Amino acid sequence: MTHVDIREVSLRDGLQIEKPIPLAAKLELLAAVAATGVREVEVTAFVSPTKVPSMADAAEVAAHLHDYPDIEFSALVASPNGAKRAVAAGLRSIEYVVAADDAFSMRNVGRTSAEATDQIGEIIAIAHDGNVTVEVTIATAWDSPFEGPTPPQRVLDIATAARDRGADRLSIADTIGTTTPGRVSSLIAQVLPVIGDLPLGGHFHNTRGSGLASAYAAVNAGVTRLDASVGGLGGCPFAPGATGNIATEDLVYLLTDSGIDVDVDLKAAIAAADVAKSLVGHDLPSALLRAGDRIRA
Amino acid sequence: MTHVDIREVSLRDGLQIEKPIPLAAKLELLAAVAATGVREVEVTAFVSPTKVPSMADAAEVAAHLHDYPDIEFSALVASPNGAKRAVAAGLRSIEYVVAADDAFSMRNVGRTSAEATDQIGEIIAIAHDGNVTVEVTIATAWDSPFEGPTPPQRVLDIATAARDRGADRLSIADTIGTTTPGRVSSLIAQVLPVIGDLPLGGHFHNTRGSGLASAYAAVNAGVTRLDASVGGLGGCPFAPGATGNIATEDLVYLLTDSGIDVDVDLKAAIAAADVAKSLVGHDLPSALLRAGDRIRA
Repeated sequence: MTHVDIREVSLRDGLQIEKPIPLAAKLELLAAVAATGVREVEVTAFVSPTKVPSMADAAEVAAHLHDYPDIEFSALVASPNGAKRAVAAGLRSIEYVVAADDAFSMRNVGRTSAEATDQIGEIIAIAHDGNVTVEVTIATAWDSPFEGPTPPQRVLDIATAARDRGADRLSIADTIGTTTPGRVSSLIAQVLPVIGDLPLGGHFHNTRGSGLASAYAAVNAGVTRLDASVGGLGGCPFAPGATGNIATEDLVYLLTDSGIDVDVDLKAAIAAADVAKSLVGHDLPSALLRAGDRIRA
Repeated sequence: MTHVDIREVSLRDGLQIEKPIPLAAKLELLAAVAATGVREVEVTAFVSPTKVPSMADAAEVAAHLHDYPDIEFSALVASPNGAKRAVAAGLRSIEYVVAADDAFSMRNVGRTSAEATDQIGEIIAIAHDGNVTVEVTIATAWDSPFEGPTPPQRVLDIATAARDRGADRLSIADTIGTTTPGRVSSLIAQVLPVIGDLPLGGHFHNTRGSGLASAYAAVNAGVTRLDASVGGLGGCPFAPGATGNIATEDLVYLLTDSGIDVDVDLKAAIAAADVAKSLVGHDLPSALLRAGDRIRA
């Protein structure tokens, strides 16, 4: 039986587009997420508190993670300074985001794609010095919200740089929810030969309804880890029209029903989605939260 | 390049759960649907006007189809009497629905699955006498809303009966939106050897978010036709929790972006979804209607 690791990103990608919620509310969501059995949680981002106010309490969130020794927590960073802050806060794992197109990269981090790629080595040095693992996440891997389709070679170049500079993992992200199974299979088939034995993850949004189909295609193409967000909470403040991540509970339903093993319990994921919905105070796009599980034999 | 036929079902499966709308409104939706370039439209149902009031004007709808000579129109029927009405109204093609489980079949048509299967021959005789083609549609092919998982052998038995009694086509329907790509591939792999050269179609609902992923898996497994509804309009009045069909525009986006050819134009499908939304007076679950197309190269 194939196993897929699910990384819960509701506390980072899910909340970053929302108005800031109190630390206590985040810890309530974290407790609900931890109860799902998930083994990996991207829990915050060490980025500009001016640009992303909802992540301003990153160090405070990090101070509460010792309550969950069985979960591998990570944080997103976008600069060497962010990496230093994450290491200092005690994180054991970081994601460094490099966008594959310049227009999004400039709006997201104020640097071109090439400039962000050039910082991979520095980020990895900072992290590895602190015994912290580094995943390089390639954003806008299929499409830019400003420039249209991303040439696959840009993704391959960043992937090559990540491998050469000693990244521990790689992931490719459909930041704006435009890709589809055919393009997912195609890009992954090009990336895998480039990265050797680096584990490859996928990050999909359901903006155009194709997120789950793309995630399933990614598993068939060879990714071993998928990001998801309870309730489908999420979006990107710097990508117009971006909506939620694929919902954890919808992904768990699809994968387990298709014979793929995951660590996340479906009922607990639906319960966590309900907590997320209460905390942000509006409906979420999750299908399972609305329709519930099917009748089991 | 693989080609998939899309059959537009908004006028039947889409509207059957809605309050009846005037004939003129249906004709407005039909005009919008016809403008997409779609070649097959399931346009109404000849069923009990008491049980499905929104289809009570089936014969009146049928009287307007000569305006669209390039479209193959069909109507759903659930009994020999419905088949007679459809033939008399001038339809050239009918779908006869047989549910694979007894609980849904009893609620849907007042007959067990075996009793409904036994009527296939009579339906086909009525239709073929009038030079009308017959598709047998197997409802609740993966799950019953009342009994849980459908044993695949029930589907194979109905498929065998359809083949033996001279059906022109077969389709399998996930009536309540519970199936997933793994189970889709598995069932289709079992059905195809049974039906010889009968064309096989698939009908999916997006109730649990897996509809598009299941549709894509169905194409990869060998179906050549998919039902869809502009806007994701739809649901089944006799299946608790059932929500919309997969949205035509979301399906067109996914398939064409994945390199699969369809007859339906994306922009026109989004426009038709907008017409559907106005006519029923409430939001529809379509993702493309909300997010729009991606930026093209």
